[in-house]
Amino acid sequence: MSHTSEPTRSYSYLGPAGTFTEAALKQVEAAQGQTWRPVSNLGEALNDVVTGVSDAAMIAIENSIDGGVTVAQDALATIPGLRIIGEYLVPVRFVLVARPGVKLEDVTVVAGHPVAYGQCRAWLDEARPQHRHLPATSNVQAAADLFDAAKQVDAAIAPPGIEDHYDVEVLAEGIAENPDAVTRFVLVSRVGPVSEPTGADKTSLIAELPEDRSGALLDLLEQFATRGVNLTLLASRPIGDRMGRYRFVIDAEGHIKDERVADALLGVKRSSPNVVFLGSYPRADRVSAEFRPVHDDNRFRDARDWLREVIEGVDPA
Amino acid sequence: MSHTSEPTRSYSYLGPAGTFTEAALKQVEAAQGQTWRPVSNLGEALNDVVTGVSDAAMIAIENSIDGGVTVAQDALATIPGLRIIGEYLVPVRFVLVARPGVKLEDVTVVAGHPVAYGQCRAWLDEARPQHRHLPATSNVQAAADLFDAAKQVDAAIAPPGIEDHYDVEVLAEGIAENPDAVTRFVLVSRVGPVSEPTGADKTSLIAELPEDRSGALLDLLEQFATRGVNLTLLASRPIGDRMGRYRFVIDAEGHIKDERVADALLGVKRSSPNVVFLGSYPRADRVSAEFRPVHDDNRFRDARDWLREVIEGVDPA
Amino acid sequence: MSHTSEPTRSYSYLGPAGTFTEAALKQVEAAQGQTWRPVSNLGEALNDVVTGVSDAAMIAIENSIDGGVTVAQDALATIPGLRIIGEYLVPVRFVLVARPGVKLEDVTVVAGHPVAYGQCRAWLDEARPQHRHLPATSNVQAAADLFDAAKQVDAAIAPPGIEDHYDVEVLAEGIAENPDAVTRFVLVSRVGPVSEPTGADKTSLIAELPEDRSGALLDLLEQFATRGVNLTLLASRPIGDRMGRYRFVIDAEGHIKDERVADALLGVKRSSPNVVFLGSYPRADRVSAEFRPVHDDNRFRDARDWLREVIEGVDPA
Amino acid sequence: MSHTSEPTRSYSYLGPAGTFTEAALKQVEAAQGQTWRPVSNLGEALNDVVTGVSDAAMIAIENSIDGGVTVAQDALATIPGLRIIGEYLVPVRFVLVARPGVKLEDVTVVAGHPVAYGQCRAWLDEARPQHRHLPATSNVQAAADLFDAAKQVDAAIAPPGIEDHYDVEVLAEGIAENPDAVTRFVLVSRVGPVSEPTGADKTSLIAELPEDRSGALLDLLEQFATRGVNLTLLASRPIGDRMGRYRFVIDAEGHIKDERVADALLGVKRSSPNVVFLGSYPRADRVSAEFRPVHDDNRFRDARDWLREVIEGVDPA
Repeated sequence: MSHTSEPTRSYSYLGPAGTFTEAALKQVEAAQGQTWRPVSNLGEALNDVVTGVSDAAMIAIENSIDGGVTVAQDALATIPGLRIIGEYLVPVRFVLVARPGVKLEDVTVVAGHPVAYGQCRAWLDEARPQHRHLPATSNVQAAADLFDAAKQVDAAIAPPGIEDHYDVEVLAEGIAENPDAVTRFVLVSRVGPVSEPTGADKTSLIAELPEDRSGALLDLLEQFATRGVNLTLLASRPIGDRMGRYRFVIDAEGHIKDERVADALLGVKRSSPNVVFLGSYPRADRVSAEFRPVHDDNRFRDARDWLREVIEGVDPA
Repeated sequence: MSHTSEPTRSYSYLGPAGTFTEAALKQVEAAQGQTWRPVSNLGEALNDVVTGVSDAAMIAIENSIDGGVTVAQDALATIPGLRIIGEYLVPVRFVLVARPGVKLEDVTVVAGHPVAYGQCRAWLDEARPQHRHLPATSNVQAAADLFDAAKQVDAAIAPPGIEDHYDVEVLAEGIAENPDAVTRFVLVSRVGPVSEPTGADKTSLIAELPEDRSGALLDLLEQFATRGVNLTLLASRPIGDRMGRYRFVIDAEGHIKDERVADALLGVKRSSPNVVFLGSYPRADRVSAEFRPVHDDNRFRDARDWLREVIEGVDPA
Repeated sequence: MSHTSEPTRSYSYLGPAGTFTEAALKQVEAAQGQTWRPVSNLGEALNDVVTGVSDAAMIAIENSIDGGVTVAQDALATIPGLRIIGEYLVPVRFVLVARPGVKLEDVTVVAGHPVAYGQCRAWLDEARPQHRHLPATSNVQAAADLFDAAKQVDAAIAPPGIEDHYDVEVLAEGIAENPDAVTRFVLVSRVGPVSEPTGADKTSLIAELPEDRSGALLDLLEQFATRGVNLTLLASRPIGDRMGRYRFVIDAEGHIKDERVADALLGVKRSSPNVVFLGSYPRADRVSAEFRPVHDDNRFRDARDWLREVIEGVDPA
Repeated sequence: MSHTSEPTRSYSYLGPAGTFTEAALKQVEAAQGQTWRPVSNLGEALNDVVTGVSDAAMIAIENSIDGGVTVAQDALATIPGLRIIGEYLVPVRFVLVARPGVKLEDVTVVAGHPVAYGQCRAWLDEARPQHRHLPATSNVQAAADLFDAAKQVDAAIAPPGIEDHYDVEVLAEGIAENPDAVTRFVLVSRVGPVSEPTGADKTSLIAELPEDRSGALLDLLEQFATRGVNLTLLASRPIGDRMGRYRFVIDAEGHIKDERVADALLGVKRSSPNVVFLGSYPRADRVSAEFRPVHDDNRFRDARDWLREVIEGVDPA
């Protein structure tokens, strides 16, 4: 970015090299040429940010097949001081790999991260009906497990390109069920001033519902609907204190500095016992929010001007 | 109010002395000892205010039997520069009066203001089935018509106490259908700064619906509902340019300086092509608005503080 | 309609010949060649129907300038046994007429029905600033008043064509404020089976709001909105027992035999303490209702089939 | 149930003996003395029902800490022919166990099902900060892993009572974070006629949102809200074909044979491109649904009677 002695920034991500998370981090322009810190789980990644070990962490937040990454949603709901500053999409494709010389018909035990396994199970049930699954802690670790004799693994589900990192052979490609599957990642930093809108932004928040009111979710959704703010994600998560109490993970189109979004957030804040603002950031798909003219920024400003004049008694005549 | 040479204020009202409008004006403390200007119709009363001839005008705005006084609603919707500053209730009671010596069984032609006639018709149909109605321009004028030979009036519908002003005898009392009937009056002045809330206030406005959206009325009502603002009046009036286009006359509980009311008005202003704010003023019945804590002023201020801190990046941790 | 001895039908209308109401009745094909019964007011017209003196009555129900004809709305709300069977639109145009030889500059006292006067006042204020208004009981009666010496009337506001009925001269044409003004009439009969839908129908009803629930109007409107039923009229009328209690006069697009309308009416009936169904009838403007496929009749039938199968336990597999 | 030769029923559940699922099945009166079939995963349990190997399967559906069991939700959404017939709650409590003689200070590697581990991690972080986690396929398997030398496990997270099934000693009790945690199980059978309401019932369904309408979720929720039907669960699940498309897993208070629930389901069916009815069954907590009189069964029947009479033209007078 500059040839002066700008301090290096550090980015934590679920490693090792070769994971989908690393693929997401490769999309971050500002991260190129900086320090990349592979970690072994989500908690470690977020802890690096909270403690200042890293400036930001890349984490998986939603999968088009498997849904929200609930442990990430719950972490963002409960760890204070974090802020989402970017969103990245990585296509989900898998290959089946084995140690050199192993053939598909030799495969019984298949290592794989549980999410990856879920997406490839249909193919495995067809190709190797008698296979057994051994869970791995990451897609890359599954390949590494091939070389841990104690684990007795015959094959591993891994991302394309894994053969650059391990001495493996590809037994089959494109084994995931849905060829359009994609994982959504977010880049998380410590809390700081919100960046400016780009015109194609997304705002993430988490809101608890009040305990004592049926229809509370309807009220919450109407805060967005009456301001013409579309939601791209709505996921319920148990608060955890007792059955039936939920918080909602919400992604809304637009930026907190858009008047209609700010007004909706004010409404949500008033009606919810607990709201966590997670950030406003550019959308990965660069799609601009659509809204009717009645929800335009100018309309909000004009209304405020009108209200002030009306209270002061300026004669409209 | 003071013994210094404070200029006298002038109040216009539908005269002559003895009308229900005068009874409403008698309830206005600040009007006592000032100039009272009887006029012959609503247009004259409001014109007095617009032109500065009077400081305020008392006008009937709603009747518990007959509904909104539509001509008054339409005048407030279209004459700029007016503001409602007070509300007063007058019980609607009628007596049947005649020239001395006339008996009930002699009565055929009955003079009465059309609204008064409507409220007394059931009684008249029973007592004098063959009667005919001659419209009068006010309840007091009906009594005056008894002494206009050309009109050939036998009896008149008039307010109690009319015998203090005219040489008439009361043939029957309590002839109106509903003993609890009441007329609501408002005191109208020129536009000026809105007075402070009293805790038991009402806010009046008139809003047009957007032309091109079904569900527009639902949207309008939700602006109030989502802020917990109850409506005490909702009346549709044709805009008049073509069939099917309406403006709505709305009375809402609370004061424009109450946060929840101000926020609802902002929402209405944004979504309506034309809003006329008619005023926030103390309610005649002194009933305080009821609302849930979530719509309290503090909740609005706290939400704004939260939004500002969130945008600035104040760490909540 | 037929030369066999079909009994003659009788139609009551606000007479005499020449009124807008007569013009509406002229639009009713089935009424041609039948008995037409001019009456002097709305109550008489409806009473003719209730008592069987007439088969139907034509009454004015809404005016594009002046709004709902409240006395007609209130009559339909409270007189049982009536049903609207047709809708007709009549353009509202007025001429100023006088006895032969009278000139515009001679005119001081102008007779006119109050509604007609309201629509022509702007023209009269301009042309004859010093004029006075004498209320008449109908637009035709205003012309008749020209020949009642006791009334001292100089000119009358009357409908075009009045010169066919009275010896008058037209002083000015097109004196009403809005050239597009129109009055909506409905043809009212006794209750009977609802006729079949035509595809361009309207359904009229009157519903009271429950006394004890704020947000009750919103609930009422949502009964229509959730079934995709648009409203063409919504007017509040006081119930009359005390201030603040309303019934709503509603015209909805569609026919009670349309599934979406029937379902909305069921919802209204359940939530309202009192609903009066006034009728489903062809729209005067012949405009078909627009609705999304999701509100189509088939969708309703399919859903009922599905519900029955689900309860019976038919395996969808 | 009877000593006559009634055929034995078979129940599949996630085994082996000692799991929470077995604890749920122990609550099913009709299952006592019948054949219990331990299986190793959810897919096997449901497949037993689909193929007729078992009459019913007990499966975990929601956890008060961890949220919906998404794989179970997705299975019910996509496997046709299944029906929920009962609901059971099992408190979630964990003990830490080891082979006889092992002390807490010797523990490094802890076996545990990932969900169980999540609930006990706080305690383990405190007691054994350097511990490592080895995932197990069930809570009971974690204990079994203690005796698989290859796995080198020191201690296991297991349900109370595990010492009845394995030769283990309890190192610590009550190690789960939340003492009130509970898992909700449902008993699933093949599709058949819905049983009668008990007055304290729950209805489960899964509905897709239409693709092309923002506000579609609001519409869906209003189908329940306008009939006074409370929701006890609302969880979004990706449909899986592309990012941003969801189905919603819904638990509603009441029974499909309750009129208000049936009417809400009809509305959902009309507006959703795909609805799966999962069943109406007695609630585990035996809490009766609360609703306003306006949503009572009688109100629905009365409204239908009224609609029919109105269409037929029965005179209400």
